[in-house]
Amino acid sequence: MARKLAAFTGRPVSAAEELIITPGTQGALFLALGAAVNAGDRVAIVRPDYFANRKLVVFLGAEVVPVRLDYLGSTGKAGLDLAQLEDAFKSGARTFLFSNPNNPAGVVYSRQEIAAVAELANRYGVTVIADELYSRLLYSNQTYTHICAAGIAPDQVITILGPSKTESLSGYRLGVAFGAAHLIERAEKLQAIVSLRAPGYSQAVLNTWFDEPEGWLAERTAQHQAIRDDLIAVFRKVPGLSVRVPEGGSYLFPRLPPLTLALHDFVRAVRVQANAIVTPGTEFSPDATDSIRLNFSQNHQAAVQAVQRIAQLIERYRA
Amino acid sequence: MARKLAAFTGRPVSAAEELIITPGTQGALFLALGAAVNAGDRVAIVRPDYFANRKLVVFLGAEVVPVRLDYLGSTGKAGLDLAQLEDAFKSGARTFLFSNPNNPAGVVYSRQEIAAVAELANRYGVTVIADELYSRLLYSNQTYTHICAAGIAPDQVITILGPSKTESLSGYRLGVAFGAAHLIERAEKLQAIVSLRAPGYSQAVLNTWFDEPEGWLAERTAQHQAIRDDLIAVFRKVPGLSVRVPEGGSYLFPRLPPLTLALHDFVRAVRVQANAIVTPGTEFSPDATDSIRLNFSQNHQAAVQAVQRIAQLIERYRA
Repeated sequence: MARKLAAFTGRPVSAAEELIITPGTQGALFLALGAAVNAGDRVAIVRPDYFANRKLVVFLGAEVVPVRLDYLGSTGKAGLDLAQLEDAFKSGARTFLFSNPNNPAGVVYSRQEIAAVAELANRYGVTVIADELYSRLLYSNQTYTHICAAGIAPDQVITILGPSKTESLSGYRLGVAFGAAHLIERAEKLQAIVSLRAPGYSQAVLNTWFDEPEGWLAERTAQHQAIRDDLIAVFRKVPGLSVRVPEGGSYLFPRLPPLTLALHDFVRAVRVQANAIVTPGTEFSPDATDSIRLNFSQNHQAAVQAVQRIAQLIERYRA
Repeated sequence: MARKLAAFTGRPVSAAEELIITPGTQGALFLALGAAVNAGDRVAIVRPDYFANRKLVVFLGAEVVPVRLDYLGSTGKAGLDLAQLEDAFKSGARTFLFSNPNNPAGVVYSRQEIAAVAELANRYGVTVIADELYSRLLYSNQTYTHICAAGIAPDQVITILGPSKTESLSGYRLGVAFGAAHLIERAEKLQAIVSLRAPGYSQAVLNTWFDEPEGWLAERTAQHQAIRDDLIAVFRKVPGLSVRVPEGGSYLFPRLPPLTLALHDFVRAVRVQANAIVTPGTEFSPDATDSIRLNFSQNHQAAVQAVQRIAQLIERYRA
């Protein structure tokens, strides 16, 4: 496992000291944050980003310091506000947590952005927790930079991965966190009291992770990309709707035109009238009151039809 | 599952509102405590009791209020100091966590003790978390009282069970917590951010839990009891050693005679010279500096031989 992760990221990984196998990637996120963050700490978090990040920081008694991601206004990079990130570090944040590709927007951080994050983390002594759950599912030969191999001090970075998404092995509840030995040691101690270990019999599936049949990943990515392209085409025809084409992952995060319904009512209307489940943008960023997140990892035709129904619903409730 | 738990404990369980399936019983313990306890709270905990209890309370930023269990000086009851328990509740503890059968001592709380705990909990508005992980493995028709069915207010008790011990299904990482609906709801929300859910494919084994083949539990219990009796016989021949015969579970918790070695050095000597793993008593109670916990759930003959080697080591290091 350590050898595979080292080959994938380009950073050496000590199996004995720098790797923990966790109950799912959600478990990895909790254990990494639990190891790095104490009550009263300040934790920098991207807006928008995965909703559990914020909730975990609150559960740990720490304070969220938001950092803006201008995903709609950027191309060739994710759009992280690096000045705001530095301000967060200056204000005392000693942990920075982000997902790459970003969940919900599916955008990938550029090599320059990752290098800048690494440089700032080194300068301010910040621990970076990189949730790279979707980093195997990249479209059109998108380049990807693992921050753990981008010049950051080895004892200041934890990377999180798991076979739940691209590989559809979520039901086994397996994940990994690897990096800073002193934090992995704390994560092991925390795991001993909160969940003991990842399910033993499940762990057998890790043997084939990264060793899938030749061509499997390319085919899976192509299928996802074809769905993505068809969904984007539907949304592009909706006047006033903004959506960035995701570079990885299985999500779309469109900004909707003004509606006569509040966001939560529209999400309910999507469920009841369009028979589709979407997540309100406010789960990812308090100010994303005009956005919804869609998961398109399912059936191609069903996904296109669902988005067509959502587009019709936008017209019905257009302000 | 809810029907089986209701039949086992004698308390109705609503599957929709009063039951959560967790990643192992360790996960159940963490989620129940995480739901019930806030930073700064006082939590009453038995001494000695399972070591993770204390560590979880500390992790949650709460304070441990110890309550003595005189397991060596009691018969026909576990030996809980009820006056000290009431003092703990008077001092502001609003949660009481205990294992029954007790881990490490294997003693079972009497009907009177459980009734008294329920009555005190009702009077002081205390939430009781009962870790009943070993409650199916009871020796010689030992009677057992589930506190959830002993007159405690339904919204003040959480019971924890799992198929990891008696049933040897630990590798599947499955547990349950059931009881107070408002706490189960909080536990569900906490699970959503710390571990998402118990492993999906594993959950199939819950279908046969409590529905094992006729006679299976009796045979398994008889096998454990035969090991227990042989180990107790070995320890009874060691002058100055005190041990109570456990009424349930797979542990012995002998108090050793004075030794020339400190406890941790003796535990290391047991590992290196007697090729056996025991846990220092101080993991269960800071003042149990003269006790060790043994697990006898393994091979009968190997367990007896290991205890014989430990008895020899006691002679070697007798003060």
